[in-house]
Amino acid sequence: MADNVRIETDSFGPIEVPADRFWGAQTQRSLQNFRIGGERMPAPLVRALGIVKKAAARANISLGALDAQLGQAIADAADEVIDGTLADHFPLVVWQTGSGTQTNMNANEVIANRAIQLLGGEMGSKKPVHPNDHVNMGQSSNDSFPTAMHIAAAEQVHHELVPALEHLHAALDGKAAEFADIVKIGRTHLQDATPLTLGQEFSGYAQQVAYGIERAKAVMPALLRLAQGGTAVGTGLNARKGFDTAFAAEVADITGLPFETAPNKFEALAAHDSLVEAHGALNTIAVSLMKIANDIRLLGSGPRCGIGEINLPENEPGSSIMPGKVNPTQSEAMTMVCAQVMGNHTTVSLAGATGHFELNVFKPVIIFNVLQSIRLLADSARSFTDNAVVGIEANRDRIARLLHESLMLVTALNPHIGYDNAAKIAKKAHKDGTTLLQAGQELGLLTEEQFREWVRPEEMIRPG
Amino acid sequence: MADNVRIETDSFGPIEVPADRFWGAQTQRSLQNFRIGGERMPAPLVRALGIVKKAAARANISLGALDAQLGQAIADAADEVIDGTLADHFPLVVWQTGSGTQTNMNANEVIANRAIQLLGGEMGSKKPVHPNDHVNMGQSSNDSFPTAMHIAAAEQVHHELVPALEHLHAALDGKAAEFADIVKIGRTHLQDATPLTLGQEFSGYAQQVAYGIERAKAVMPALLRLAQGGTAVGTGLNARKGFDTAFAAEVADITGLPFETAPNKFEALAAHDSLVEAHGALNTIAVSLMKIANDIRLLGSGPRCGIGEINLPENEPGSSIMPGKVNPTQSEAMTMVCAQVMGNHTTVSLAGATGHFELNVFKPVIIFNVLQSIRLLADSARSFTDNAVVGIEANRDRIARLLHESLMLVTALNPHIGYDNAAKIAKKAHKDGTTLLQAGQELGLLTEEQFREWVRPEEMIRPG
Amino acid sequence: MADNVRIETDSFGPIEVPADRFWGAQTQRSLQNFRIGGERMPAPLVRALGIVKKAAARANISLGALDAQLGQAIADAADEVIDGTLADHFPLVVWQTGSGTQTNMNANEVIANRAIQLLGGEMGSKKPVHPNDHVNMGQSSNDSFPTAMHIAAAEQVHHELVPALEHLHAALDGKAAEFADIVKIGRTHLQDATPLTLGQEFSGYAQQVAYGIERAKAVMPALLRLAQGGTAVGTGLNARKGFDTAFAAEVADITGLPFETAPNKFEALAAHDSLVEAHGALNTIAVSLMKIANDIRLLGSGPRCGIGEINLPENEPGSSIMPGKVNPTQSEAMTMVCAQVMGNHTTVSLAGATGHFELNVFKPVIIFNVLQSIRLLADSARSFTDNAVVGIEANRDRIARLLHESLMLVTALNPHIGYDNAAKIAKKAHKDGTTLLQAGQELGLLTEEQFREWVRPEEMIRPG
Amino acid sequence: MADNVRIETDSFGPIEVPADRFWGAQTQRSLQNFRIGGERMPAPLVRALGIVKKAAARANISLGALDAQLGQAIADAADEVIDGTLADHFPLVVWQTGSGTQTNMNANEVIANRAIQLLGGEMGSKKPVHPNDHVNMGQSSNDSFPTAMHIAAAEQVHHELVPALEHLHAALDGKAAEFADIVKIGRTHLQDATPLTLGQEFSGYAQQVAYGIERAKAVMPALLRLAQGGTAVGTGLNARKGFDTAFAAEVADITGLPFETAPNKFEALAAHDSLVEAHGALNTIAVSLMKIANDIRLLGSGPRCGIGEINLPENEPGSSIMPGKVNPTQSEAMTMVCAQVMGNHTTVSLAGATGHFELNVFKPVIIFNVLQSIRLLADSARSFTDNAVVGIEANRDRIARLLHESLMLVTALNPHIGYDNAAKIAKKAHKDGTTLLQAGQELGLLTEEQFREWVRPEEMIRPG
Repeated sequence: MADNVRIETDSFGPIEVPADRFWGAQTQRSLQNFRIGGERMPAPLVRALGIVKKAAARANISLGALDAQLGQAIADAADEVIDGTLADHFPLVVWQTGSGTQTNMNANEVIANRAIQLLGGEMGSKKPVHPNDHVNMGQSSNDSFPTAMHIAAAEQVHHELVPALEHLHAALDGKAAEFADIVKIGRTHLQDATPLTLGQEFSGYAQQVAYGIERAKAVMPALLRLAQGGTAVGTGLNARKGFDTAFAAEVADITGLPFETAPNKFEALAAHDSLVEAHGALNTIAVSLMKIANDIRLLGSGPRCGIGEINLPENEPGSSIMPGKVNPTQSEAMTMVCAQVMGNHTTVSLAGATGHFELNVFKPVIIFNVLQSIRLLADSARSFTDNAVVGIEANRDRIARLLHESLMLVTALNPHIGYDNAAKIAKKAHKDGTTLLQAGQELGLLTEEQFREWVRPEEMIRPG
Repeated sequence: MADNVRIETDSFGPIEVPADRFWGAQTQRSLQNFRIGGERMPAPLVRALGIVKKAAARANISLGALDAQLGQAIADAADEVIDGTLADHFPLVVWQTGSGTQTNMNANEVIANRAIQLLGGEMGSKKPVHPNDHVNMGQSSNDSFPTAMHIAAAEQVHHELVPALEHLHAALDGKAAEFADIVKIGRTHLQDATPLTLGQEFSGYAQQVAYGIERAKAVMPALLRLAQGGTAVGTGLNARKGFDTAFAAEVADITGLPFETAPNKFEALAAHDSLVEAHGALNTIAVSLMKIANDIRLLGSGPRCGIGEINLPENEPGSSIMPGKVNPTQSEAMTMVCAQVMGNHTTVSLAGATGHFELNVFKPVIIFNVLQSIRLLADSARSFTDNAVVGIEANRDRIARLLHESLMLVTALNPHIGYDNAAKIAKKAHKDGTTLLQAGQELGLLTEEQFREWVRPEEMIRPG
Repeated sequence: MADNVRIETDSFGPIEVPADRFWGAQTQRSLQNFRIGGERMPAPLVRALGIVKKAAARANISLGALDAQLGQAIADAADEVIDGTLADHFPLVVWQTGSGTQTNMNANEVIANRAIQLLGGEMGSKKPVHPNDHVNMGQSSNDSFPTAMHIAAAEQVHHELVPALEHLHAALDGKAAEFADIVKIGRTHLQDATPLTLGQEFSGYAQQVAYGIERAKAVMPALLRLAQGGTAVGTGLNARKGFDTAFAAEVADITGLPFETAPNKFEALAAHDSLVEAHGALNTIAVSLMKIANDIRLLGSGPRCGIGEINLPENEPGSSIMPGKVNPTQSEAMTMVCAQVMGNHTTVSLAGATGHFELNVFKPVIIFNVLQSIRLLADSARSFTDNAVVGIEANRDRIARLLHESLMLVTALNPHIGYDNAAKIAKKAHKDGTTLLQAGQELGLLTEEQFREWVRPEEMIRPG
Repeated sequence: MADNVRIETDSFGPIEVPADRFWGAQTQRSLQNFRIGGERMPAPLVRALGIVKKAAARANISLGALDAQLGQAIADAADEVIDGTLADHFPLVVWQTGSGTQTNMNANEVIANRAIQLLGGEMGSKKPVHPNDHVNMGQSSNDSFPTAMHIAAAEQVHHELVPALEHLHAALDGKAAEFADIVKIGRTHLQDATPLTLGQEFSGYAQQVAYGIERAKAVMPALLRLAQGGTAVGTGLNARKGFDTAFAAEVADITGLPFETAPNKFEALAAHDSLVEAHGALNTIAVSLMKIANDIRLLGSGPRCGIGEINLPENEPGSSIMPGKVNPTQSEAMTMVCAQVMGNHTTVSLAGATGHFELNVFKPVIIFNVLQSIRLLADSARSFTDNAVVGIEANRDRIARLLHESLMLVTALNPHIGYDNAAKIAKKAHKDGTTLLQAGQELGLLTEEQFREWVRPEEMIRPG
């Protein structure tokens, strides 16, 4: 046998694994049988499996099922999974068994071997710590993996997505205040309409994100329900009575989030409706951000031949030839992220709908997409905020020019000269390409003084 | 002019409309300019526009903006829209202007003409009731149409979807109780696994639907927020101060649902995130029902060559040749509905993401899909319940035979003869195609008496 | 028994049906068991079932399986299904059995009763024409329904979609020629870029539609392969040898399209990949039309505060207040249609992926969506062409003004005064809000004469 | 300055980059401005950019635009990009500017610096090889990046996907032949139906994959059309006349695939309909593979309590307790891949639909998804073939037992004892749970000898 390998065994027999890796036989077989793509199990899911194994060890100790010293070694090894130290020992891809069994065994094997090492034993010996008997005690992949899915998703929503959206919301809200006095032309159907303030426009974006934060928070209760304790089919066979609630309490303690045991474990193994629901919130957030990012690039279009009402910060060369060409690259990254998240939603929905009997076997692809969507939304919300939103400046001159060129201000004349005369003015101005004032004067319907008094856009931005 | 037409006018001039229809010029132009598909605006949306017009009339009267007699005539005419009497006067299709303006004008025109008729005037004269000045008073299509969208969706969720899901839940829950003592083989990865009861299996379905009911109810707060009062761009120009809250109170009074005015009208016109969110719940419900309907047809597959653990009611001939061939047609209708709803979700999400500035102009397609999804889910939930679930019978003989043939019961022998000996028995039985008992006896590892004592599936359906 | 009903029977026994309808017992049962939604089987599918029954009768006569007189009566009755005369006798909805059996039986029952009537018999007697034995001879719903799906889709693509796209292509191509000499500013990232002609811009749209026509035509070969002859599971049990090819030849004769029998009937019953593929083409066409319709409304945005490079025809009042406000309603209808088609694609794909063994039982929802997408695309292509594209006018003044205000023309100065000096001019003009000429003159880098000679946008619209 | 960095510059000024990396200032800025996700630009796209730069250098030399020595150094450096040697020098993620400009500049910068190194110059000096003037000569990101997208997709379809599908097809076709004589029960609606051979069943799968290969090949012509030569907006400004065709010929020479220049460059920059179309084929292939993988796991379900007609190879432990429990893990990986691809299709379609004017700025997300889908489908087709399909064995005993227990064979009695008597037998057998023979004998309708003569399933697998 080469120096750089050792022998690990499972019920299929012996197999060589790299000597410097903690994983065992089942991980190795998965590596060889699933040479598909390159997408590894996401780090937050691996971390969550560490939390599962630590919480299970603690719960089993407290229930008298597991020797305290072994349990402590398992918990210590699990801590190294939780903090990422052992990241290189989780080589498996998403495209494996649909229950995530191989990644659950990967965690069991790595933690067992590391615990053995901590206790001075021999790696691969399964003594004194056995990956199945001790690390996986009272568990099945069928409940451990979905439990890890929920823990990972809940942690990422709570620690990443919500703060990132709050960061974006604060910036948009700040702009709404900063631009509160800038009256501009409104646009409906992409056509000129009655005015509003630029601050009001940004308040709409801020409101969308505020609701997005609520939507993100609203998925937490469902994510906080854990499948653990259901074991193989939901009955809890082979787990101790009370293991499920003891386990959930340990996870709550470790994570600081109020996890609890799911009231019906059959549902928790066989369906992932909670994650479909959660991704529905991500999808809605993507829909919101798509609108916002798109509006912002349209408002900033130009510099001469577009809308040009705002200036976006210039972060990188847009063109080696054209000074003043600032491409709205943060909007572009954001909208691409949104398109990805919206497609991921199709994947998650389809995967969630296609379980059979006691087990949904699309678990890895579901959590892969959920975690990718969370990260992309969180990262791009931060990037968009810091590299675009905070640097947005109103182009006050252009806003004022467009506003005053607009024909729609004619609405303000109705009470003074009547709808029919106002319409005449607007039609003439449109036909001749002149201002309302010019047209009105030429028609002899008003004086400049009257026009200035009657047409005041700043009065048109609220109810009468 | 032919007898069967009359002349209506708008700012484009005169146009002939059918004499026996209440609609006016703008409706007629839309009919001619949008010869696309055959999907008419859904009835609940037309009803909701009736509610909008009645509530607006009442609010305008109370604010002193509208003459009480005219307002009452409008409210009376609107009542006929609300109760469906005037359904044939709403001919427009979904594929029109994206603000729904033409359908809003359809409502204004029909109500104005009907109110004129009630007041003894001449249809088409716009006197004494003008479609814009009176019926649409203080409103714009841009706030009226999204208001109607929310009212329609909220009413349908509350009055149709939730009760239908509760009906299904009760039936599944009843089956869970009825089947509570039937121990059967579990299946994970579609492979035989440890046992559970048929009641436990159905409890998982019931739980999915119970959560579905919660999901449906959870979308109500967002749907209850109304855009009305924002008028053209969200500022409320041309509406009276206080109109928005007075209007929402009237809608609450008319519908009995606690509608309220949206805190930010810019968001309410420019985005439909609330409806995207609501359809996310519909999508999750479809995912749940797809799993349930699919499981039920798999459990009922056979009669001889499938799973065959349950019998489905026979509702219609499955084949003219094969007695006993009961096709799971209710599951098929249900899963087709779920596929439709899941696709509608892509449409709604895409449409929701693609607004510009002050207005999202995918309003008709959004509400068309939302209302179709609600109706299909509600109708199929009821049909599936009444024509399938309530008539499901357990095939106790087959369930028992499969359970006892299963090799997985060997798990129960571990504590008595050890894992290795148990494994030998299982492997021999699998290889020889015999029962565990036969294999155990042939190996001399146990007696029939011991087997009967140790292998008790009814003990394997809960934690130890 | 009431006067307005008669008794029909099937293997479940007798049932009342409306006396003035040709349908029989199985149709009536479906009506009662599937009270779901309101979407009826699409007319082109019903027509296609008429073609199936006529072609089958003819093929069975020619193979000596069916009495010629009975067969002729069936063919005559089928002709009334084909031409739509009997449309009111097909009341069933999409949400029924997933094989379409009930609609196939609807066709069998209606044609049998109408043929009985033509032959002077008594409706409901099944004599001398039996719905199963004669109308459905040598067929099963499992091959007849997918055959009708292909016939309907192929006819609609050939007779509706392709001509409608050709109509649109001709209009866009005409505009490309009409606008060939109008040099305008280009836009990338929504930012000003180097120039092109408006004709070049429209040539891109025309090219997209030209490819769309190719895509539509490319799905025909797969749609022309017919499942008929596979009967219940693909083996052809109960059909005469040679029935499949004789049948396909009859369909080709009736329709004028070169239908042929599918080489593998197992695939043709169990999967609908051909229709998924066909809808993939519809999806791509929707993607193209979304881009085109969106660009056109952006180009027409304004009239004063947007891009405003083209004027769209004014088809209806956009606002009762604002003359000159032309809303791009045809673009809005088109983009809503595209969103619907793109969502339908999710439905069709999911439905196509979810068959089991010898039969895909999502047949009705698949063909419903395919036919809806075809009709919506065809109708909206025609509406968009006639009500928008042909009336587009270039706003030459504004195009010229924007072009000459643009800073990007500075690129043309590089060969004459060097990149660094050109950059100085552009930066100064951007900063001061002046023209390039002004900035160049102020910097003393060029004269007006030189500027006029060097900066010629009409030279920048092709390779050097 | 630290030893491990050097200074690079762009129009924004100087910036530190890692000394051991070839990339320059624009790559470094992108790294800092787009800290989003972890998905790097896919290797086949980076390779394709290498091909673009080499082909451009060659074409520019041949057109007399580029010094031959510089051009050769560029081609040599590009070769190291093509063969993957410089993979570590392409650190950018997908979520950047939507034109892929930053990755195009990454290629320009890396190739320039490597060429400078090959020519003995100083990295970062831009002498004698300038990233823009020489490596990007006659190009824009706006045409180079979509050209690379097409090259990457075409190479992966041709070299990866098609061979992998052919591999799968051969295996399925082999099984169809191997199982040609095994008569088994058919199943429609998941219910027992008339028989077919297991070989016929597999022939349906093989046919699906055969069509899938055709679909994959059919997208090649569109992918072979290259945007290069359109430069910034499609006009070709700054490229030499003839560059586009010379370039395409060079790419054809380098890759051995018949690439050609796109006839309309405006379409080729502004839309990615060809890639949407190509992903439509991937989506259809995913739909096919979902059906096949799902059927195979259903056929192999059991071992005792499912269908159990085939045995799947045992590749890894399914459970530590249950011998004989073989989980269909390859089907699970495959169906997860299909769900991913179907979701990616939503992303690609949405991204493709959302371009503006002269440029679609969802380029990176489109190619990321297209390449991921191709790789996942190709890898999983190979894995599924090698680890599942080739090892499938028919469970002949069980197949025969199920076939002969089935009630549907009663169909064969119709011609001998009449439909009514046959129906009596079937109904009695179903009710009593006996065989058809037993029921027939008990009813006195036939003898065992007659039954054996008349009921011959092997005669029921083809037309009469």
